[in-house]
Amino acid sequence: MKVLVIGAAGMIGRKLCERLLKDGRIGSVAITDLVMADAVASDLGAGSGFARSITVDLALPGAPAKLLASKPGLIFHLAAVVSGEAEQNFDKGYAVNLDGTRNLFEAIRAAGDGYHPRIVYTSSIATFGAPYNGPIVDEFFHTPLSSYGTQKAICELLLADYTRRGFFDGVGIRLPNICVRPGKPNAAASGFFSNIIREPLAGREAVLPVSDDVGQTHASPRATTEFLLHGAQLDSAQLGARRTLMMPGVRASVADMIAALRRVAGDSIVTRIRRMPDPVVMAMVAGWPTMFETKRALALGFLAEPDFDSIIRAHIEDDLDGVFVR
Amino acid sequence: MKVLVIGAAGMIGRKLCERLLKDGRIGSVAITDLVMADAVASDLGAGSGFARSITVDLALPGAPAKLLASKPGLIFHLAAVVSGEAEQNFDKGYAVNLDGTRNLFEAIRAAGDGYHPRIVYTSSIATFGAPYNGPIVDEFFHTPLSSYGTQKAICELLLADYTRRGFFDGVGIRLPNICVRPGKPNAAASGFFSNIIREPLAGREAVLPVSDDVGQTHASPRATTEFLLHGAQLDSAQLGARRTLMMPGVRASVADMIAALRRVAGDSIVTRIRRMPDPVVMAMVAGWPTMFETKRALALGFLAEPDFDSIIRAHIEDDLDGVFVR
Repeated sequence: MKVLVIGAAGMIGRKLCERLLKDGRIGSVAITDLVMADAVASDLGAGSGFARSITVDLALPGAPAKLLASKPGLIFHLAAVVSGEAEQNFDKGYAVNLDGTRNLFEAIRAAGDGYHPRIVYTSSIATFGAPYNGPIVDEFFHTPLSSYGTQKAICELLLADYTRRGFFDGVGIRLPNICVRPGKPNAAASGFFSNIIREPLAGREAVLPVSDDVGQTHASPRATTEFLLHGAQLDSAQLGARRTLMMPGVRASVADMIAALRRVAGDSIVTRIRRMPDPVVMAMVAGWPTMFETKRALALGFLAEPDFDSIIRAHIEDDLDGVFVR
Repeated sequence: MKVLVIGAAGMIGRKLCERLLKDGRIGSVAITDLVMADAVASDLGAGSGFARSITVDLALPGAPAKLLASKPGLIFHLAAVVSGEAEQNFDKGYAVNLDGTRNLFEAIRAAGDGYHPRIVYTSSIATFGAPYNGPIVDEFFHTPLSSYGTQKAICELLLADYTRRGFFDGVGIRLPNICVRPGKPNAAASGFFSNIIREPLAGREAVLPVSDDVGQTHASPRATTEFLLHGAQLDSAQLGARRTLMMPGVRASVADMIAALRRVAGDSIVTRIRRMPDPVVMAMVAGWPTMFETKRALALGFLAEPDFDSIIRAHIEDDLDGVFVR
């Protein structure tokens, strides 16, 4: 099977590619060709026989056709300008997140010759907007409160229509909060969820800008990779016309997360969290969706971690080689 | 006030323009300039001092800027390639219904100089897709089962995002089935709803291709014009981030419609309806949304007819000069 990953240098893309490079197969099917594409250069796949990295900007004319040259039967489309940047730069957000995706879809349609790949597309809980009145059910509507969320919601609609019309076989994976994100603290307002776990485990202090009762639904990067692989393999006829699925996760408040950190790593680690309430962040958080029912995804076999302790352990195993700073 | 109507030669556009030409004002505000635009030429506005018709294809480069030359403070955007054509011609549907609308939105954004018009945009129940499990509430999600419905759902999202970003003041009006449509029977699968009322009243036979228990929610062209005028005048701050409203209507089965026709026009008229069940139409109808809660629109003062008798009477008054063929 030929596989294309678009957005391979991002956090999720990198995790997915590392997994594909290690396994060399998806399920029982061997990967014969793996193209790892991103707008920025990466060192992924060096020295691997069946994989290669290419640098290409999806929003540029001709880029999608270039990516599809080998006619990959499976495409992971993870590339996106992130939320904050799409809000700051209106044109860039629409150019990459909407037009880039539509260009890709159009290039697949234009390929003809019976070409009909599976596309696994990552969407976001930013497609939802407050108020919620309880858990978000699979039939809850999309009222994004950001341009990023708008672009994701639009691409979910395009994914469904292009699939319905028979141009490809689309599966949308709507992700909950990804935690624990490896790497440095970033500027995202939601970054504190990962920061308060990752930084203390690395021996550094982390700032908690919200109160302990703030809740969210989380999945580890490891679970996210499994979501994508399951989305690549499932019998998509089961999806009917509703091609995007809200993924399950672990519902946990900040207090729950800290209690889990204490259980997994001990009291001394937890003292590295410094409470510095930030009214701006707290106001943003208040508008986020936090509870999801995800009946459809669970029925289709998508699996979340059983608890937040497991999310912390996955981070220690996958990103810290099993060792944290006591 | 300067007013622009895009899609002025369509059925709704024509009704709206006739009303604007007659009233010369919207609420208490006089119309100083009325531009009635459509991709096809029309005879609207001939002889009126403040109004003119122009022929322009919204999907062509430069067209939106031309339409906005006079900086209208109120824009009704009703233009669309209809459902059947958008399904038959994928490229044309997206070019007009999505790109044409986005071009308009971008041209408004590009105008700058504090230009911030009210846009009243008509959307459709084609944004919904089966299964429904009861009445469609205001928070029910969009899963269109047609390219037309997809394009309308996407433009609802763009309307909300451009409004949120401060580029204009958008109000979306999601219409139920419009009945009674004047004119000739058309090829639309939903045409029978209007045909079985309009044709018998004109002394002609009408074909009913579905069973008498098929239900739908209806609004007259007269009520639809009122929806648009109310959408133009309401305090849009009341909408918050959720800019599109599902309009109310009269829920009636075919049996209810025929009973109303009998009450309004008499037994002999009803004998002109011929039952010829069509499995293809019946299968399509089974997927349509038919019941809507519309709490928000009702709370904001949008008014449906009280019953189907009133819808028939509106047709006789507005389209038949009060006279039908006994």
